[in-house]
Amino acid sequence: MPGRTLLQQAVPVTLGLKAAGWLAAVRRSRARLRELAPRALKLQFGGAAGTLAALGTRGLDVAAALAEELQLALPDLPWHTQRDTIAECGAAVGLLAGSLGKLARDVALLMQSEVAEAFEPADRDRGGSSAMPHKRNPVGSVVAQAAAARVPNLVATLFAVLPQEHERAVGGWHAEWETLPEIFRLAAGSLAHVTEIVDGLEVDAARMRANADGLGLLFAESVAVALGARIGRPEARQLVEAASKRAIAGQRHLRDVLREDAAIGGHLAEAELVALFDPQNTLGASAAMIDRVLAAAQE
Amino acid sequence: MPGRTLLQQAVPVTLGLKAAGWLAAVRRSRARLRELAPRALKLQFGGAAGTLAALGTRGLDVAAALAEELQLALPDLPWHTQRDTIAECGAAVGLLAGSLGKLARDVALLMQSEVAEAFEPADRDRGGSSAMPHKRNPVGSVVAQAAAARVPNLVATLFAVLPQEHERAVGGWHAEWETLPEIFRLAAGSLAHVTEIVDGLEVDAARMRANADGLGLLFAESVAVALGARIGRPEARQLVEAASKRAIAGQRHLRDVLREDAAIGGHLAEAELVALFDPQNTLGASAAMIDRVLAAAQE
Amino acid sequence: MPGRTLLQQAVPVTLGLKAAGWLAAVRRSRARLRELAPRALKLQFGGAAGTLAALGTRGLDVAAALAEELQLALPDLPWHTQRDTIAECGAAVGLLAGSLGKLARDVALLMQSEVAEAFEPADRDRGGSSAMPHKRNPVGSVVAQAAAARVPNLVATLFAVLPQEHERAVGGWHAEWETLPEIFRLAAGSLAHVTEIVDGLEVDAARMRANADGLGLLFAESVAVALGARIGRPEARQLVEAASKRAIAGQRHLRDVLREDAAIGGHLAEAELVALFDPQNTLGASAAMIDRVLAAAQE
Amino acid sequence: MPGRTLLQQAVPVTLGLKAAGWLAAVRRSRARLRELAPRALKLQFGGAAGTLAALGTRGLDVAAALAEELQLALPDLPWHTQRDTIAECGAAVGLLAGSLGKLARDVALLMQSEVAEAFEPADRDRGGSSAMPHKRNPVGSVVAQAAAARVPNLVATLFAVLPQEHERAVGGWHAEWETLPEIFRLAAGSLAHVTEIVDGLEVDAARMRANADGLGLLFAESVAVALGARIGRPEARQLVEAASKRAIAGQRHLRDVLREDAAIGGHLAEAELVALFDPQNTLGASAAMIDRVLAAAQE
Repeated sequence: MPGRTLLQQAVPVTLGLKAAGWLAAVRRSRARLRELAPRALKLQFGGAAGTLAALGTRGLDVAAALAEELQLALPDLPWHTQRDTIAECGAAVGLLAGSLGKLARDVALLMQSEVAEAFEPADRDRGGSSAMPHKRNPVGSVVAQAAAARVPNLVATLFAVLPQEHERAVGGWHAEWETLPEIFRLAAGSLAHVTEIVDGLEVDAARMRANADGLGLLFAESVAVALGARIGRPEARQLVEAASKRAIAGQRHLRDVLREDAAIGGHLAEAELVALFDPQNTLGASAAMIDRVLAAAQE
Repeated sequence: MPGRTLLQQAVPVTLGLKAAGWLAAVRRSRARLRELAPRALKLQFGGAAGTLAALGTRGLDVAAALAEELQLALPDLPWHTQRDTIAECGAAVGLLAGSLGKLARDVALLMQSEVAEAFEPADRDRGGSSAMPHKRNPVGSVVAQAAAARVPNLVATLFAVLPQEHERAVGGWHAEWETLPEIFRLAAGSLAHVTEIVDGLEVDAARMRANADGLGLLFAESVAVALGARIGRPEARQLVEAASKRAIAGQRHLRDVLREDAAIGGHLAEAELVALFDPQNTLGASAAMIDRVLAAAQE
Repeated sequence: MPGRTLLQQAVPVTLGLKAAGWLAAVRRSRARLRELAPRALKLQFGGAAGTLAALGTRGLDVAAALAEELQLALPDLPWHTQRDTIAECGAAVGLLAGSLGKLARDVALLMQSEVAEAFEPADRDRGGSSAMPHKRNPVGSVVAQAAAARVPNLVATLFAVLPQEHERAVGGWHAEWETLPEIFRLAAGSLAHVTEIVDGLEVDAARMRANADGLGLLFAESVAVALGARIGRPEARQLVEAASKRAIAGQRHLRDVLREDAAIGGHLAEAELVALFDPQNTLGASAAMIDRVLAAAQE
Repeated sequence: MPGRTLLQQAVPVTLGLKAAGWLAAVRRSRARLRELAPRALKLQFGGAAGTLAALGTRGLDVAAALAEELQLALPDLPWHTQRDTIAECGAAVGLLAGSLGKLARDVALLMQSEVAEAFEPADRDRGGSSAMPHKRNPVGSVVAQAAAARVPNLVATLFAVLPQEHERAVGGWHAEWETLPEIFRLAAGSLAHVTEIVDGLEVDAARMRANADGLGLLFAESVAVALGARIGRPEARQLVEAASKRAIAGQRHLRDVLREDAAIGGHLAEAELVALFDPQNTLGASAAMIDRVLAAAQE
């Protein structure tokens, strides 16, 4: 498949490398949530000002017993208006929602009629389009991208209310009540849908290969690099650029255009030229990179 | 000083407990930044699609050498459009800005003319008010609170652009360029100002004691607890509530009102009554809590 | 009452001027909503791409009939992915929530134990504090300030999803579904509470006068202006500043300090001095300003 | 060109209808800015509390003269901490940035290699891709979409600081200083780039027609409507859906598949069938809609 900006094919990449990127991001989110747990799962217990004064001399003992009962860590002091860990929880879950949104956006872009390289799974429960019988609705991508659009601003609310007054806030604390659960709810919904997408992703490998091949322009860079080693980079680049323009103008394959170019032909043998346009030869370190991600994931 | 909601005094707390809360929050921010470093300080190196194909078979070696040269960790794969760690950096610094904003807000509230318990340091460079010669401008609190108001939405921008397209984004990446440095700049400015505030905080202990004493209402809860142990909580609460209302109506000290209350007098001896209104006896576990925070900070 | 920064009393203002500011802001919100209505209350009707092609030649007629039935304006063309008017609705309601939050913050600051100039109404349904019998909970201020903290980021979501794809969005549209009603819900809740606050605001005029008087420092500027007309502004300012410092140091009233100051006494007669410390003489154009706001409100 | 969700072609639309949507949105932004002007271009003048007391009895006269000198409207009262109009300015400009971002996103999606229906103008100053000689960089789309990603959160900052304290804020006001100009700067940059895009947009009409035609699936709805008038909608839909599946499976044109379908052939004559697949016949009210937008724009 083409490695792409949204706009343009650049050089070939494999779906595997793209998926390894998705996986690595989700694993970073898991690592963050694990790091965060001991900081976040902490008792908050205290009277109006947190001094535990109403419990006489037994305040700390009661707190310790309660923490043990609830299986929460015991904080050094009350944190009723020190909400950084609450905001941190929202941020950690928000990062997950964002990474899932990236995955969903990639899938949605691949599903476009004109690209058509990969698709969300068809599903009894998902239903087809009401207007177009042959269409498959991107339900999961929609949910994950809507979540990724909403969560950042909910996270911002948690950060915005960090400056809470004295020992008890007027409004700041209350702004968290619906906001934090909403972040979890949206991220959980996104995760459920993205899991379904990933489990059932339908890939059209033939179409991928066709899109990647096209006029062969994806391989222009490889050619320029190979040619540059013989005749210098600037001249190689200029020649390949001119050939690319001729390929586009004539809707011919770049390999064929290059073959006819006297200025190039002398420097690249036919076998070499064919090899330069073989996607397998232009994947660089992709396989090794994917292996590293998978190895880390299996630890 | 009174432990307060923004609005009302609740029960007595010490400035030390409040400051321990500030310290613990800043130390959590430091812990977060340390945890984050190995994830964040990572090489990003790759061509248009990150496959390192343009470097032939030496892509990974070049990447490793570059990472060593730059003293950055080597990522498993390119992350040009997997920006979660960038957003995480913004969030971690944003949490610091928020905690500093909380400190600044507390100080600003304490500086109010009618409270007047603590003040930002006077400073040659800070200048007085132009209109009111006797005023001291809260320069640092202003800077820290403005930063705490702006940073959350800059963090939201980093989260919002996480769904970047394919291997190279159209706009999402570019939205980070000014945003991330702005977060660091604002947090650093806030930190500089808050450091000055904390280093030179001027405390009016007499005023604190006076504010905390007032009509003695801050101690109503202690009295209700002590009395409740003798006559039951509901009745105790009712008696203390009625006495509090009389104290407010007559602008008399609650201790004096209680002393005259036959229903109460029989249950609380004079010495006990005096002790109940001694702030030192109503600080609960404050001292132990502060010690724990300081001990952790000195590790 | 003192005109204040959060931190410090500046010069005297009346509660009336403050309330006129609240009123003017709410009236601007009403004007905005009225301007917006013809833009916002518009039919959205169209098939998958908005061309009304499925209705043959009668598309526009059907649209016109539907608009009339629903009492909505007829748009020039479908706007399914042109959502600026939706975002504008959120913004207009968000501005109202912000202005109500400003009112609520002012009230909350006035309710502080140490200020105690105005209070939310006591109410059967609002209940007292659970811990402190004599406390009145600022329920309305809390609700309005929590709403003012949450709404801005919900508005940001509506703005963030404006770039919706082609004729039908993948996620952007769906992110509006819960967000826009939430903005209305929060603003409506805030409005209900603030209406109650304003209807029943309890004002302690004696306390206001006392807070404004204090050591008389609020009137330092008036004195400096009056004195400056005789001896030049720089010298007047210097003298008043020195007197203010002596007033604070000795906890004496500035008027008394000034009276004893030979350098000043010669220039300000006793009657003049007394008049300078009369709040009624230092309200400037406040009354005229309030009249203008009230006149505009009664139109 | 196909009317699209991001993902899938739906029914045919013209580029003209899409552009009319862009135009209508920009014109709504202009209308908003004009409505806003008399509210926004207002004098703010006043001493520490806005009473103009320092100017004696001439406060309002001085204010009026200053307003005239600056060609600003005269407000009824000072609005130093009533910032709704400032936030409204940010919102109005933010809506423009969002609408421009929508235009830029549409163009970016059209520029994709696999779609290739329209392109930002090539330009001496824009430069080609460094890695791929034949690529055209979407400079303007990038700028406009980055602006549309950043502006919403800057607007949120202006809304978040609306609850400013009393007569002078601690931080809220200061948070506006860099934020409001940034919104204007980003929107202005976006506008400059989008103007260039629109002025020089290169359209590949042949490619549009080819993309719209494809297997003819874009016209499935038209066929189902026409057929439904004869044999009932449910049955028509079922038949067309089955035919569409066969068209996709066999990579044949839907028209040809329908022609061979005995169940359909009897109801649709050949001329009718051809007409149903002529894009000109499936544009519904597009032309009339475009005319309305253009007429409104020329007023």
